[in-house]
Amino acid sequence: MGAPLRIAIAGLGTVGVGTVQLLQEHAEAIAVRCRRPVEVTAVSARDRHRNRGCDVSMATWYDDPVVMAREAEADVVLELIGGSDGVARATVEAALSAGRAVVTANKALLAEHGTDLARAAEAAGVPLAYEAAVAGGIPIVKALREGLAGNRARRVYGILNGTCNYILTTMEETGREFHDVLEEAQHLGYAEADPSFDVDGIDTGHKLTLLTSIAFGRPVDFGAVFMEGIRHVTAMDIQQADELGYRIKLLGVAEETEHGILQRVHPCMVPKQGPIASVDGVFNAVVTEGDYVGRAKLEGRGAGAGPTASAVVADIMDVAAGRTAPTFGVPVDRLETGPAASIDTHVGAYYVRLMVLDRPGVFADIATALRDTQVSMESILQRGHNPGEVVQVVMTFHPTVEAAATRAIDRIAHIDAVVEPPCMIRIEDL
Amino acid sequence: MGAPLRIAIAGLGTVGVGTVQLLQEHAEAIAVRCRRPVEVTAVSARDRHRNRGCDVSMATWYDDPVVMAREAEADVVLELIGGSDGVARATVEAALSAGRAVVTANKALLAEHGTDLARAAEAAGVPLAYEAAVAGGIPIVKALREGLAGNRARRVYGILNGTCNYILTTMEETGREFHDVLEEAQHLGYAEADPSFDVDGIDTGHKLTLLTSIAFGRPVDFGAVFMEGIRHVTAMDIQQADELGYRIKLLGVAEETEHGILQRVHPCMVPKQGPIASVDGVFNAVVTEGDYVGRAKLEGRGAGAGPTASAVVADIMDVAAGRTAPTFGVPVDRLETGPAASIDTHVGAYYVRLMVLDRPGVFADIATALRDTQVSMESILQRGHNPGEVVQVVMTFHPTVEAAATRAIDRIAHIDAVVEPPCMIRIEDL
Repeated sequence: MGAPLRIAIAGLGTVGVGTVQLLQEHAEAIAVRCRRPVEVTAVSARDRHRNRGCDVSMATWYDDPVVMAREAEADVVLELIGGSDGVARATVEAALSAGRAVVTANKALLAEHGTDLARAAEAAGVPLAYEAAVAGGIPIVKALREGLAGNRARRVYGILNGTCNYILTTMEETGREFHDVLEEAQHLGYAEADPSFDVDGIDTGHKLTLLTSIAFGRPVDFGAVFMEGIRHVTAMDIQQADELGYRIKLLGVAEETEHGILQRVHPCMVPKQGPIASVDGVFNAVVTEGDYVGRAKLEGRGAGAGPTASAVVADIMDVAAGRTAPTFGVPVDRLETGPAASIDTHVGAYYVRLMVLDRPGVFADIATALRDTQVSMESILQRGHNPGEVVQVVMTFHPTVEAAATRAIDRIAHIDAVVEPPCMIRIEDL
Repeated sequence: MGAPLRIAIAGLGTVGVGTVQLLQEHAEAIAVRCRRPVEVTAVSARDRHRNRGCDVSMATWYDDPVVMAREAEADVVLELIGGSDGVARATVEAALSAGRAVVTANKALLAEHGTDLARAAEAAGVPLAYEAAVAGGIPIVKALREGLAGNRARRVYGILNGTCNYILTTMEETGREFHDVLEEAQHLGYAEADPSFDVDGIDTGHKLTLLTSIAFGRPVDFGAVFMEGIRHVTAMDIQQADELGYRIKLLGVAEETEHGILQRVHPCMVPKQGPIASVDGVFNAVVTEGDYVGRAKLEGRGAGAGPTASAVVADIMDVAAGRTAPTFGVPVDRLETGPAASIDTHVGAYYVRLMVLDRPGVFADIATALRDTQVSMESILQRGHNPGEVVQVVMTFHPTVEAAATRAIDRIAHIDAVVEPPCMIRIEDL
């Protein structure tokens, strides 16, 4: 049995407490697997006197996590504070400067500053591990960085935000509208009071950025991610999707294109029989397409104390056992900077829903707009017939480049009889 | 850049050639990720002069792989010969004795001799890696051994044989019978001339044994696996399953029960909406249930040159980067020997199909048999009505212990009017 691996934990929220519980409950099994015990020697959180339901009395308390990261008797600093800057960032930087390994669940921090932090970890010769930052308990970071490392990635995509997936699944099951379901999710604790990070696709974008870096060996480039959330998806869109053979999911997709790496987050209509449509509720899934392995999918719980603690502890066990890899799979100076493709270059099919005054000539106006913008319509369907009233018109476009689809939709939006901004959802063969 | 990792390859069949191609095509990326190049320095195969479509002229040729394993200038010996004994085993033993790391795709060898080989690897202080032995390109060995290592496993199960899954999927899609589809699969090269390893569940059993060892920290115990293949599954059973809301899959299941670890391989009726029913054709999937992570599923191609080479190369890259773990997750002397549960202790629901002479009194005889054996029937259905002729009767039992179900079926088989041995398929909520 080797010397204990000493852990300093910054942040004792749900995940921190779950991690302490896992480390204590399975202490013996972990020691056997790592050939050394893992001990929590220091902790830091906001309120020292709060009862958290876990015993950290054996650990030295620090009011300031940055001081702890610098001074504690610890081999690993666990950053579970969250946020892309401020104290979380300072804690990680202090730990790396002090030559301590870092394990974090902080996707925002890594999406914004991952390349710099990876460089600092390399300079210090310590690992910077973040399995818990992407897709909760699913070991996707390890799978991409090690288990599938022999492949050249073509594409990686997934359902990376359980809150959005829960909302979309519930909208589908109940026929209710977005705001109604969001409110309920907030009451149930599945969504934050400020839901923007989740429902506007930012959280998915953070996670996608990390997957992109590992899969393609690129520096993290969160600024290049196209992001569109799910606020505009209606119960009617979900029903229409169903009739067309699709389900609507918020996906993060990163793919190599002739214009560079395209990173995009948006609602997608995906075929019901495809690999991603069946992933429901709070589950996450990541699909990766490699040149030798073909398509592989990993699915599991994307959030929650247990799954996240599972991922955090796996990282700790890797550090304990001396299993390390460069933060994004290759050394920082070998990450390849290349062009980032714009969403305008995306080629795909489109679903467009319009609210239209039911009067003669509207279809002709739409047809003219499509002809002028060189977009080919696959289908058009008017729901109901009510002369003089507003009715719903649903169209699908054959695969076309997004720049053209956007021009077409913009032209259509300016037709007099179109009374609301059109709703567009991309159709993907994923 | 570190010193090259030198590889000696024993066996240049499909997987060997695929591995050489991958190592050559992605040589630079692999060197960057491992911080050292990987070089094939020695090869051994049956026929030196066969054109294999890959260039191994830079490697030293050995007619005898055992001599190569002992003498070649290599850090790693790749065993891709196959078979649980004979030259494959001798090659691996020679490599470990000579202090060389071993990477193998040989499930039969490890299922039969895994604990001894793990001990030899430990004594030599070298890794024995076998990601390719289970579920092809899916990195499930790494996921269980490292990515989910903090969990206590409750159950692990999966579709582990692409040949059987292809046959069952094709039977379902076409309504054709087993032997017909098997013959076609043999013509297409999806099934061996001697299909027994696949269709009788032996290959699934081999793979399950390895998953069991990793998930539960047990010595490999292939002898304890209950195995039943898919030869007795008929098109009618598949249609009945469909009507009952199930699909039929050959599963390997390992679970902790009050009687010990139960390892079983047999066709299962699984709910269409469950995590495993949608895995079609040559795809494999493994579901693991851990106490913290909950349910996680990994899905991908279970065989073929590309996916298998992907797994082999991942193992090689781990060796190159110095990432190692004990063969079955814990050191051999910490593997826990415990009782193996018998299939008789399994508790589940059952589907039973009978061929019965259509005459009065048969249902009464069946009911008596069930009463006497204390088995509770959920449903019974006679297909067609043809007095004096043979008709089909389909029953389902409520969950019961297998010993009782077996007694009931045995009693029913002895009823005069039952003219063929009953066909039983277990119903699982997986």
